[in-house]
Amino acid sequence: MRRKMIGFEELTPLSEALEKLRRYMTHRITETEIVSLEESHGRILAEDITATISIPDLNRSAVDGYAVIAEDTFGATPNNPVTLRLVGKIMAGARPDQLPRIRRGETAEIMTGAPLPDEATAVVMAEHARQTNSKVEVTRQVTPYQNVSRMGEDYPAGSIIAKKQTRIMPWHIAALAGQNITSVKVLRRPRAAIISTGNELVMHGMKKNVGEVIDTNRPMLKALLETSGAEPIDLGISPDSTEELRSQIMKGLSRADMVIITGGTSIGETDNVPDVVSSLGEPGIIIHGLRIRPAKPTGVGIIGGKPIFMLSGFPVSAYIGYKTLVEPCISMMTGTRMPPPPRIRGRLTRRVAKPQGIRAFVRVRVRREGESYIVEPMMLTGSGLLSTLTGGNGILEIPEMLEGHDEGEVVEVEITQPLEGD
Amino acid sequence: MRRKMIGFEELTPLSEALEKLRRYMTHRITETEIVSLEESHGRILAEDITATISIPDLNRSAVDGYAVIAEDTFGATPNNPVTLRLVGKIMAGARPDQLPRIRRGETAEIMTGAPLPDEATAVVMAEHARQTNSKVEVTRQVTPYQNVSRMGEDYPAGSIIAKKQTRIMPWHIAALAGQNITSVKVLRRPRAAIISTGNELVMHGMKKNVGEVIDTNRPMLKALLETSGAEPIDLGISPDSTEELRSQIMKGLSRADMVIITGGTSIGETDNVPDVVSSLGEPGIIIHGLRIRPAKPTGVGIIGGKPIFMLSGFPVSAYIGYKTLVEPCISMMTGTRMPPPPRIRGRLTRRVAKPQGIRAFVRVRVRREGESYIVEPMMLTGSGLLSTLTGGNGILEIPEMLEGHDEGEVVEVEITQPLEGD
Repeated sequence: MRRKMIGFEELTPLSEALEKLRRYMTHRITETEIVSLEESHGRILAEDITATISIPDLNRSAVDGYAVIAEDTFGATPNNPVTLRLVGKIMAGARPDQLPRIRRGETAEIMTGAPLPDEATAVVMAEHARQTNSKVEVTRQVTPYQNVSRMGEDYPAGSIIAKKQTRIMPWHIAALAGQNITSVKVLRRPRAAIISTGNELVMHGMKKNVGEVIDTNRPMLKALLETSGAEPIDLGISPDSTEELRSQIMKGLSRADMVIITGGTSIGETDNVPDVVSSLGEPGIIIHGLRIRPAKPTGVGIIGGKPIFMLSGFPVSAYIGYKTLVEPCISMMTGTRMPPPPRIRGRLTRRVAKPQGIRAFVRVRVRREGESYIVEPMMLTGSGLLSTLTGGNGILEIPEMLEGHDEGEVVEVEITQPLEGD
Repeated sequence: MRRKMIGFEELTPLSEALEKLRRYMTHRITETEIVSLEESHGRILAEDITATISIPDLNRSAVDGYAVIAEDTFGATPNNPVTLRLVGKIMAGARPDQLPRIRRGETAEIMTGAPLPDEATAVVMAEHARQTNSKVEVTRQVTPYQNVSRMGEDYPAGSIIAKKQTRIMPWHIAALAGQNITSVKVLRRPRAAIISTGNELVMHGMKKNVGEVIDTNRPMLKALLETSGAEPIDLGISPDSTEELRSQIMKGLSRADMVIITGGTSIGETDNVPDVVSSLGEPGIIIHGLRIRPAKPTGVGIIGGKPIFMLSGFPVSAYIGYKTLVEPCISMMTGTRMPPPPRIRGRLTRRVAKPQGIRAFVRVRVRREGESYIVEPMMLTGSGLLSTLTGGNGILEIPEMLEGHDEGEVVEVEITQPLEGD
C-alpha cells in the first residue's frame, strides 16, 4: 500500500480552516439578475433599496375615531367631557383635496387609514368619545399627533429600506411593494457542481448489483444547496479514474462557483481526489484533514480563487463537512450572513466522551419533558449511519478543549428537525 | 357611529385561542400526490417509508486497511506485531461472489466500502499495519466487527426510515435514495386563499392616487405561506362591500383549505369582515380580539371546519397574527410539528414595559458584542411600521403575567434575520 495510507500529516482546526478559506477563496458572486418582487423571496439584494415615496405618504389616522385639534381636548375627562361640533366624516381612501376643514371646536369622524385634514393634529379614539347628532363629547384628552401615523414615520423618502446583500424576507417584500416596486435586482444564485466518486457507486433509480452502493450524497447535497440558496449542477458519478475526475472537476470549475466532491478524499489507494486537485493549479490544496469528528478526511482546494470541497463519501461526514465549510463559504461568496440555527438547552441523559483537541458533532435526540428538554446522545462515530440524522433531531457540537460532557449536564444543541414530546 | 365601535367585548388569551382553533378546526389535509424524490424536499410524507433493502446490504469495511479474522490479531502491539499472509486485495464495488477467501493467519487488503469476505470478522486500519511483499505486520489488535459496517446496522430491512407526516429533510432524501426510491407520496400542500380588504387599497404595480394605499399584505403573506410550505391562492383586493366580500370568502372556502383576510377586522364602521364571516354558517366566529399586542383585532371564524383568519390590515399585526395563529394552524392541518425557531439570549439595553394580562411581541435589534448579545428594544406599538421588521432582527415575546423587563435583564429573543456585529 502506498505511503499516503499512513495517515493525515497534520489536521487543521476548524477555525483555522475557515480562516484559510476566507484568505484564499477570492471568488465572489457579482453577476446580478432581475426577478419579479413575488419571486424574490430568499434572494440576495444586489443594490440598496431607497424609499422614493414616504410611508405613510401623508398623515393618516391610526385608529377609528375623531380628528381633532389636540388643544381642543386638553382637560377632557369622562366627568368633564369637551364637546366638539361634528363637521364631516372621512373614510379610508378619501382624496386629501376633498377633506372637511377642521376649525377650533370642530371635529370629523375618521376611519383607520384615512387621511387627516391639514388642520387636525390628533385623533380621539372612538372608545373615548360619544356622538349625538352633530355633537361629539370627548372624554379623554389627546396630545398632538396621538393616534396619527405621521407622514414618513415608517420610511421617510430617501431613507434606506434594505441594504445591498440583504436576504429578502417576507417583510422586505411588503416594504418594497409599498414603494410600488414590482421587480428587484438580486445576485444570481451561487452555483455548485457536485461530483460523487467511487467505482462502487450507482445512481438511485438504476439497477444495483450486489456489492454496489447507491450514491446518496448527490441527492442530499442538492437539497442542502437549495436550503443555502445555491443552485446545484449535477455532474454525476465519476469513476476512480484520474483522467475522468480531472476532466469533471475542470468542467465544474468552468460552469460553477465551487465544486463539491464526495468520496475518494481520504488517504487510501483509490483516494485520488487530493492528487488530482493538487495538479490543477495554485494554491491547490489548502486544507486536508480537519480536527473534527466526524468528517476528519474533509479537504479544500482552491483553483483560480474558487473552492473545491473534498467531502467524505460517508453521508454523515459529508453533511458535517457541508455545514462547517460549504455553507459558510456560500455566505462569504455572496457577502451575506446566515441567521443562527435553532438551538435548545437540555440535560444530557448520559455522559459523552470525545478526544481532546478534536471538535465533535454528536448526533442527539432531544425531547421535551414538561418545561425542560432531555438530550439523548446517539453517536459520535458512525459517520456512515444516516439513521443518526433521520432518527435524531439535533447536533451537539463539543469544542476542542473539552473532553466531553457529564451525564445530567445542561448542553446547547442545534435542532435539525421538530422535537418530540409534549 | 355604531355601537360596535365601543370596543372588543372580551379579548381571548393566545393559548385559549389556539385551544379553540384546535377544537373547531376539523379540516385536515388528506389528499396526497406523488413527487420525484428530488422535488420532495420540505414536503410532508404521506406514508411510512420502510427499508426494503438492509443498509449496508452486506458487511463492508469502514476503513482502508486489512480484512482479518479478529482472533488472529489478539495481543498485537507495535513491539509485538502479528504477521499475516496477504492473500488478495478487495476494492470498493467488488462482487461479493468473487472475494478472496480468508483463512486463519491470512489477510486481504481492503478499501473503504468494499465487501468483507464471509470468513473475515474485522478490519485492521492501514495505519496499524505494515505491508512488505506478501506479508502484513499488524501492530494493534482488533475486536470482532471493529472497523466493519455491519449489514443492516444503518437500516435493517423492515425498519422504518421515516414516519408518515415527517417533513422531508436532506438526510431523508439520502436515506430514501439508498432504498432506490425515486418518487414519494406526500401530502398536497395546504392552500390558503388571501383577500385584502379596504377601499383605499391598490395593488402594487398599479397607478396609485394620492390618498390611496398600496396593499403590502398580500405579497408578504404569499412569502410567509411559502415559508410554511403552503400554497397561496390570491383573491386580490376586495372593496368594503358586504356582497363582494361574502362572495370572495365563499370562493376562498371552496378553493382553499383556509382563508386569510387582512383589514376590516376591527370594530369600526367599515369593518364588516366579522359580520360577513358570522353570516356564513356555524360555528362562525370563534375568536375576535386577542390578548396580544400588536394584533389585538385578530379574529378567527370557522365554516365547515375550515378556518377564516381575520388579520389586521396593519402589516406588523398581520405578521404577528400569521405567526401566532396561521402557522400553528397549518401544522394542525397537516399533522406535523415545526422545528423551534432560532432564539438567542441577550441583555436588554433598556427597560421594556407592557400592560399586564397582554402577551407582547416587541420588535428588537440584536447585535453581538464579543461573546454575548445585546438586545435593543425597538417598539411594542407601531403595528403599522414595517420598518420595525425590516430594520429589526428579532422578536421578544413577553408573556401575559409579566409587566415587562428591566434594563440589563437577560431575555430570550426569536431571531428573524441575521445578527449584526462581530
